[in-house]
Amino acid sequence: MFFVPELIEKKRNGGKLSKDEIRYLVEGYVKGEIPDYQMAAFLMAVYFRGMDEEETAELTLAMARSGEMVDLSAIEGVKVDKHSSGGIADTTTLVLLPLAASAGVKVAKLSGRGLGHTGGTIDKLESIPGFNTELSKEEFIRIVNEIGAAISGQSKDLVPADKKLYALRDVTATVDSIPLIASSIMSKKIACGADKIILDVKFGNGAFMKKYEDALELAKTMVKIGELAGKPTVAYVTDMDQPLGMAIGNALEIIEAAEVLKGRGHEDLLNLSLEFGAEMMRLSGIEEDKAKAREKLLENIKSGKALEKFKEIINKQGGNPGVLEDYSLLPQARFRCEVEAQEEGWIESIDALKLGLTAMKLGAGRQKKDDRIDHSVGIWLGGKIGDRVEKGKPLAVIYANDEEKLKWALKEVREAFRISPNKVEKRKLIRARITAENLEEF
Amino acid sequence: MFFVPELIEKKRNGGKLSKDEIRYLVEGYVKGEIPDYQMAAFLMAVYFRGMDEEETAELTLAMARSGEMVDLSAIEGVKVDKHSSGGIADTTTLVLLPLAASAGVKVAKLSGRGLGHTGGTIDKLESIPGFNTELSKEEFIRIVNEIGAAISGQSKDLVPADKKLYALRDVTATVDSIPLIASSIMSKKIACGADKIILDVKFGNGAFMKKYEDALELAKTMVKIGELAGKPTVAYVTDMDQPLGMAIGNALEIIEAAEVLKGRGHEDLLNLSLEFGAEMMRLSGIEEDKAKAREKLLENIKSGKALEKFKEIINKQGGNPGVLEDYSLLPQARFRCEVEAQEEGWIESIDALKLGLTAMKLGAGRQKKDDRIDHSVGIWLGGKIGDRVEKGKPLAVIYANDEEKLKWALKEVREAFRISPNKVEKRKLIRARITAENLEEF
Repeated sequence: MFFVPELIEKKRNGGKLSKDEIRYLVEGYVKGEIPDYQMAAFLMAVYFRGMDEEETAELTLAMARSGEMVDLSAIEGVKVDKHSSGGIADTTTLVLLPLAASAGVKVAKLSGRGLGHTGGTIDKLESIPGFNTELSKEEFIRIVNEIGAAISGQSKDLVPADKKLYALRDVTATVDSIPLIASSIMSKKIACGADKIILDVKFGNGAFMKKYEDALELAKTMVKIGELAGKPTVAYVTDMDQPLGMAIGNALEIIEAAEVLKGRGHEDLLNLSLEFGAEMMRLSGIEEDKAKAREKLLENIKSGKALEKFKEIINKQGGNPGVLEDYSLLPQARFRCEVEAQEEGWIESIDALKLGLTAMKLGAGRQKKDDRIDHSVGIWLGGKIGDRVEKGKPLAVIYANDEEKLKWALKEVREAFRISPNKVEKRKLIRARITAENLEEF
Repeated sequence: MFFVPELIEKKRNGGKLSKDEIRYLVEGYVKGEIPDYQMAAFLMAVYFRGMDEEETAELTLAMARSGEMVDLSAIEGVKVDKHSSGGIADTTTLVLLPLAASAGVKVAKLSGRGLGHTGGTIDKLESIPGFNTELSKEEFIRIVNEIGAAISGQSKDLVPADKKLYALRDVTATVDSIPLIASSIMSKKIACGADKIILDVKFGNGAFMKKYEDALELAKTMVKIGELAGKPTVAYVTDMDQPLGMAIGNALEIIEAAEVLKGRGHEDLLNLSLEFGAEMMRLSGIEEDKAKAREKLLENIKSGKALEKFKEIINKQGGNPGVLEDYSLLPQARFRCEVEAQEEGWIESIDALKLGLTAMKLGAGRQKKDDRIDHSVGIWLGGKIGDRVEKGKPLAVIYANDEEKLKWALKEVREAFRISPNKVEKRKLIRARITAENLEEF
């Protein structure tokens, strides 16, 4: 038994909380024995005083254990989970799922739905007619064992502490605290039963973290949590100052993932998928040499093996794999409208957040938890930073179902692009890679 | 309309809240429109970021206006209120009430009850058989107009914002914040209708503020609030590392106040009463020259005029003024027991807090809001720091009604005294005097 005001005061004064104290707070809060107002004061004290690595790891574990802990031991081999902190046109998970599985990695993916401008992988897959994202635990494990990959929505009982804490942080200005963000993400990864974790921490205009330094700190914190929790973790810090791929929107991203698997995707999305895929192969013990792993993955793209794996997954989960060959089988928007460049030059910047919010308002994302997603709408980009544009050629194509919204989106999307008369350098995508032993910055 | 998380964030980031923003928070909180958890996060942000003078003054005024604002305009002349931040054996208000009134100051005292080891003046006066501390507003004003002084309990509707905020601060480790303490005290003074305010901010072991520097900062903050609120304020910082007077306990403090008014009180209590009395005379415009004011007050003690005024007050409020001549008319404890010195020497230190808590547990104070006070119990000291003690002579006398508690108190009281074989300097009582224009440190 602890006295909560004393625990708040201890943190407020810069003290370090013990394992038992942190557990007491988390368990008491989830049970409703510790009221919101005490937790709110505690969270604000954490905002100012931070938490050290051990405290953050304990918080993470206490949160993870607050609900169901998924047991993946019935799946043979090392289960590696990959998580993105959220970005615009981030189709990596869709690509990785079949790509890594095609090289022998066991991909048992439990995924959440998206809120805000970043759609969830589950939402994207539901563009595919028939695709079932609500697998039972038994089905889920059986499919992974049979074909190497499956994806399903997270249980409602997963990390209730995070749900409750996040709702409180959201209304008490205590969201942007590195230990609180890190424990929120990592508690879910740990509760999902992963053995090892790959994190893609994004920074820039389209990401939660605006600055590289903050993203790096968050990445380091999460790698440390993983280490202390016995879940080896590799984190990447990647650029989100522009959209990652070319497609923003649910069915559009299914198309883009298919294009990457057909060897026709954008190089950034391809490269990130290859990097994470190779890292997954390394962490799974399938291929220690990452260059060789990349080669193997590229080979699986060229041979069509990766695309086949995607079809297999769709088929096993009740969807129509034909969508990957005939995109017209996916939900279609009523309007398709090009945003033409009004000048020639080079793309200097793309306001990723603006594009994300525009796609969301077209219907591709949720403003509120219960909003229904329109899978057909979105934006397909005509280029990325450093690309040449010609007057009258499309900067982007908008897919919409509402004329008013379309008109508004045309203006928004045009404003999101800045064109320079001078040649512009392409942006570097991967900026850092962090393991427990090593930090590389690129 | 403001968005509360944005106001919390603004303060969290070190921003300055506007008058309207502060009012919105206080009014919304009192109405129950802003929940405890948002206020708790806000208070913790204030703990870390502080508030500037203007913010603190606005907070104070918003709090003061949250309930009834007492109107003392029916009383002629300048109404000066004196407030103590709370200490052990602090009988000053009891002495001042008749003393200042005897010199022509209008003393319209609305007082709260004590919680914890510091008994309230109202509690002490209720030791006197028949004394009515629940005057109607009309009676209260009539008595002040007739005899120059009256004292009554505060209305339950006084500063509800403070009651609600204090209860929240108490359980969220946000009590010790200078702007929050200052606004809590000053909002009550302002709501009580005083024109001018004298503050006695105590520091040391027996006070809320342990350090001189903190007390000085609190005093400065409150003087500034008074200035910005149009209520000229003079603050003193005084020593509370030992009890102020010799009596701790309700009836005992009535006796000590009577002794001071008879010219037989302890010099510290007398001096502080004379200083505050002279300051009240100056602020009321009765006597600009404080030396002359002190002389006048001393004269009123010598002539018995001050004691007579006390009898008059007691009589008007329904009590038996005979208690001031025959102390046996006050509630009597069953046990009276001396704590004998076990060595000779000089008193080096007295643990004021320990004595206060001991008196409280004997029954002189409240541990919980609804506890009943035992007016008869307490401790009468045999000396203060620097006084000579002889072996076998009493360090203190304990008054108790319970044998078990008495035995325990004997040990506690003995431990509270440290005796030195060497001569010890007496402590300086008044350490600083702060006005809007001037700071004097002694």
